[in-house]
Amino acid sequence: MRFKFPLMAISLEVAMIVLFGLFVQYETDYSVLRQTNSSKSIDEFFVLYPLFQDVHVMIFVGFGFLMTFMKKYGFSSVGINLFIGALGLQWGTLIWGILHYHGQKIPIGIISMINADFSTATVLISFGAVLGKISPIQMLIMTIIEITVFVGNEYLVVEKFMASDIGASMTIHAFGAYFGLAVAGILYRPGLRRGHDNEESEYHSDLFAMIGTLFLWIFWPSFNSAVADAGDKQYRAIVNTYFSLAACVLTAYAFSSLVEHRGKLSMVHIQNATLAGGVSVGTCADMDISLCVSMIIGSTAGMVSVLGFKFLTPLFATKLRIQDTCGVHNLHGLPGVIGGLAGIAAVAMGVSDKSTWAMQAAALGSSIGTAVVGGIFTGLILKLPIWGQPLDQNCYDDSVYWEVPWWKEGDNCFHEHGSQNQLELEV
Amino acid sequence: MRFKFPLMAISLEVAMIVLFGLFVQYETDYSVLRQTNSSKSIDEFFVLYPLFQDVHVMIFVGFGFLMTFMKKYGFSSVGINLFIGALGLQWGTLIWGILHYHGQKIPIGIISMINADFSTATVLISFGAVLGKISPIQMLIMTIIEITVFVGNEYLVVEKFMASDIGASMTIHAFGAYFGLAVAGILYRPGLRRGHDNEESEYHSDLFAMIGTLFLWIFWPSFNSAVADAGDKQYRAIVNTYFSLAACVLTAYAFSSLVEHRGKLSMVHIQNATLAGGVSVGTCADMDISLCVSMIIGSTAGMVSVLGFKFLTPLFATKLRIQDTCGVHNLHGLPGVIGGLAGIAAVAMGVSDKSTWAMQAAALGSSIGTAVVGGIFTGLILKLPIWGQPLDQNCYDDSVYWEVPWWKEGDNCFHEHGSQNQLELEV
Amino acid sequence: MRFKFPLMAISLEVAMIVLFGLFVQYETDYSVLRQTNSSKSIDEFFVLYPLFQDVHVMIFVGFGFLMTFMKKYGFSSVGINLFIGALGLQWGTLIWGILHYHGQKIPIGIISMINADFSTATVLISFGAVLGKISPIQMLIMTIIEITVFVGNEYLVVEKFMASDIGASMTIHAFGAYFGLAVAGILYRPGLRRGHDNEESEYHSDLFAMIGTLFLWIFWPSFNSAVADAGDKQYRAIVNTYFSLAACVLTAYAFSSLVEHRGKLSMVHIQNATLAGGVSVGTCADMDISLCVSMIIGSTAGMVSVLGFKFLTPLFATKLRIQDTCGVHNLHGLPGVIGGLAGIAAVAMGVSDKSTWAMQAAALGSSIGTAVVGGIFTGLILKLPIWGQPLDQNCYDDSVYWEVPWWKEGDNCFHEHGSQNQLELEV
Repeated sequence: MRFKFPLMAISLEVAMIVLFGLFVQYETDYSVLRQTNSSKSIDEFFVLYPLFQDVHVMIFVGFGFLMTFMKKYGFSSVGINLFIGALGLQWGTLIWGILHYHGQKIPIGIISMINADFSTATVLISFGAVLGKISPIQMLIMTIIEITVFVGNEYLVVEKFMASDIGASMTIHAFGAYFGLAVAGILYRPGLRRGHDNEESEYHSDLFAMIGTLFLWIFWPSFNSAVADAGDKQYRAIVNTYFSLAACVLTAYAFSSLVEHRGKLSMVHIQNATLAGGVSVGTCADMDISLCVSMIIGSTAGMVSVLGFKFLTPLFATKLRIQDTCGVHNLHGLPGVIGGLAGIAAVAMGVSDKSTWAMQAAALGSSIGTAVVGGIFTGLILKLPIWGQPLDQNCYDDSVYWEVPWWKEGDNCFHEHGSQNQLELEV
Repeated sequence: MRFKFPLMAISLEVAMIVLFGLFVQYETDYSVLRQTNSSKSIDEFFVLYPLFQDVHVMIFVGFGFLMTFMKKYGFSSVGINLFIGALGLQWGTLIWGILHYHGQKIPIGIISMINADFSTATVLISFGAVLGKISPIQMLIMTIIEITVFVGNEYLVVEKFMASDIGASMTIHAFGAYFGLAVAGILYRPGLRRGHDNEESEYHSDLFAMIGTLFLWIFWPSFNSAVADAGDKQYRAIVNTYFSLAACVLTAYAFSSLVEHRGKLSMVHIQNATLAGGVSVGTCADMDISLCVSMIIGSTAGMVSVLGFKFLTPLFATKLRIQDTCGVHNLHGLPGVIGGLAGIAAVAMGVSDKSTWAMQAAALGSSIGTAVVGGIFTGLILKLPIWGQPLDQNCYDDSVYWEVPWWKEGDNCFHEHGSQNQLELEV
Repeated sequence: MRFKFPLMAISLEVAMIVLFGLFVQYETDYSVLRQTNSSKSIDEFFVLYPLFQDVHVMIFVGFGFLMTFMKKYGFSSVGINLFIGALGLQWGTLIWGILHYHGQKIPIGIISMINADFSTATVLISFGAVLGKISPIQMLIMTIIEITVFVGNEYLVVEKFMASDIGASMTIHAFGAYFGLAVAGILYRPGLRRGHDNEESEYHSDLFAMIGTLFLWIFWPSFNSAVADAGDKQYRAIVNTYFSLAACVLTAYAFSSLVEHRGKLSMVHIQNATLAGGVSVGTCADMDISLCVSMIIGSTAGMVSVLGFKFLTPLFATKLRIQDTCGVHNLHGLPGVIGGLAGIAAVAMGVSDKSTWAMQAAALGSSIGTAVVGGIFTGLILKLPIWGQPLDQNCYDDSVYWEVPWWKEGDNCFHEHGSQNQLELEV
């Protein structure tokens, strides 16, 4: 463990640099200019750059702070989020580019940068399911595998099925959630079946998490519209998302109050379920579904998400043996499926003629299926006892992987196996 | 209380969905296209979208965190802010659209979205005056009434008086402040005349509040320019606000140090008075007033705002029996009036020929008058003892309406009246 | 001290207003319109406005919160940051404009606003070196002097040497760092050579600092590209910075883990070294250096920055008698020099024909030389015992200059000299 993480990170970065040297180029390079209308491309770059920056804030501030809700796991939440993000966007650029440019040199434009951030988002959603229970090395491995599978599924959905999924309800949200849940299922820890003291929030950690919630909520219209066709589709993606999110907030608050003790509100619902409207309207965000339908989709998702937190998450932990730390099933899984179903319905009703309802259904099935298979495969690799995973009692505890001088810490916080590791530790 | 809040929220959302279905449409719909130059409209949408997002951050992160300064009221500040914002922007879209499109179907464009956020800002300013002393149900009712009155006054000011108020010093800031103060006056709590332990900040709550201050400060130029005429007026609205805010910071710091014990700085002044420059330059932000005049307006407002916090707020609480939790009179009331007066002077001196000084004065009078009358009316409704308002000893305390497992909480935190409520509570 | 700070701040603001009245005008004023193609200028204003706002967030939220890492110095970090920023951008506008418009009236456009924010950034970097050890008055004086020297050096580098430094690795980062280090050297406090209890972080102060880190990291591409030539140069400045930063994160994490006890990560490295990639790619950000070279520059800087924190900062404090509170040498100094060297190499290899390698070298030398001389000069002025500097035992303590009612405070927290000051204190 002493050297495994740094050496893997350095090797990966060296590999990235070599691969970028071989396969990546500016979109203003001569070889690209010959093929494209370059000034149009540069114009598009600056038109979309503000939307890209909104998405960028969502990835690094939004996801990062959303996960800081636990009292002793803030450093890892925001810190590993940054690490995964930085790794994921490099790897995502390569894999996405290789598939979409068929092995030719990959030109970097604003769309590839947005898609790189999207790849990263997928991993960060899955991160939420295993948060606190895996090591930085495990996250590094999961990032590499998951992005590869994600890009493959996204290619299948968009290029082969020709399905609509502009805000990626299926390909990012449902995919990321079910991938993460599959990993969490494989890595099930019976020792945590009664919960863990550290798995709780405290007053200020819940406020830090609201920073994440709010930036996600505010910029979600940019997320759902960033890669939409310019013009009325992009316009609709923004306004549908804006009103879906607004509607979602009202039902999230209402159902939080309904299901909680004495009508009180729960921060975990507010932090998460208020965002379900952004997820669920994703697939048909750019379609002409009318604003009141966006609001119906959003308000349904807000309700379902709260009910999921209240009733499904405990069931998952006990019956399905899946411990979903952040409740990603409720924020990304269920609302992602709602989004996929709404897309099927919309296409079936002729709102969009870009695809057929069968292709939409295939896209939803493929996204969930690929995610589960990919997640199980990844989980099995991560289960190997060589990645420095934390002991049960040290889960959800920053001091395992971070210098936290204010807390007393035990000596053997994570699993070590084999004499070589032991040796490294003693070096 | 057990069911009142959730049922009201759900009913309102259902009503919104129905009303949106009946009265709202995309601006790209066929019926709109016939009347407008659509490609121009879509172009404008994306030109203004970054400014809209700046305003959006101000509403949800800016106002939300600005109010988290109290040690035990952070969840409500940032949480109820989000709830009001989401409700307010839906209702604001409807009311603003009905007035401006005279009952025809309302097309949703970037200007209507910005105006929806503006409606919401008005309520959030008033929220600051009553923060900690009213229940979520009361806030919900206040949101619906206040936005209706606000849109009416704004219509009067802009369409009838043809007054200039591009950054809304009068129609949003003065209006929101005096509306909130009128409500706070009606809801006066003699039991809190000696203050309340919870009404204080702590070290980290003051830092959370600075997140709000800084995003408000940074994006204020976008707020004041978002609906300005494209071209030099919009340009001037940005630069006048930028320099007014910069000037305001210096006098706010100087006067904070002057009036505080031993020359020290006070966080409450820094959090609030540094923003007064954005409020006060609002009315004439797009006029050709010259940059040094913007800076005079901003530096005056910074000074007046600090003096207001130091000397007026205590007077208001004791003499006028108005308990202004966040000091909105000092951040929005006085600077809003300064803005209105500056607008009268600018128009009188011929800087703008869009309106007359008399119309500017009428706009200021109308904004304050309507706000006070509307606020008193709203206060009387909120005074009805059926809205679950907190008991005096439970004011400024999140645990009344939120799950806050770390704090001991009393059993009867809010007023209940009538056996049915009692019954609901016991369910 | 009682009146010195407020009176200086008010006098400065009055002076600013007078100077703006005499020397500054809108770029849409008639006298400007005669010379320029105004509609082009207004178009550029709104194209660059989103990038300006990104930079604005970096200055006020980014730098402000990055410095809140100490447990008892958050108010000063984020508060004095705002004060310096507001003062600096006014003064920077004037000085930059006077030099660039040769004494004619200065038109305010988006480029002058971005440059004003840049001036401010330079001072805020230096602020990091002396954080916790100087008074608000000292910061005010340093702001005025440093911006004057900065603008002079920047003029020399850009207009005389015609050197490339688009992201200002040399003129802002290296300059700001060495200026601050020179001041810190002159103001060396032997009483703090064994450190100070307050100079440590606590759990939540480290999370607040991450707000700053993340917004700096996210928006750095806008910083490096904001004043680049429109088109492919601006495009390259964005993508080079984006990938340099991503690469930098991986090496920063790897080397943090390598150098820390038992392979753990250190928050101070993550907060700072992850940003070194933005600094170091600055000089050649807009050049056609290829993306893998950006990533080599970024990953080198991440490594060097961590090693600097681990090994150089302690050496500086003991051997060079320079106490660098925030480690600006590691985040801005060394990476700035790397940036300058990379620029020399790039120009020498013919990547850019805008300047020669000798001119690039002269620019680097000038930036460091001017900074050191200017810093020593400033330090000597600040050493005068009349500026209310804190006593050693009260360093890194907000309660010296802020109302902090929750902490016990001593009576004589800062140096007072001369009976008049004493008198003022007792007033």
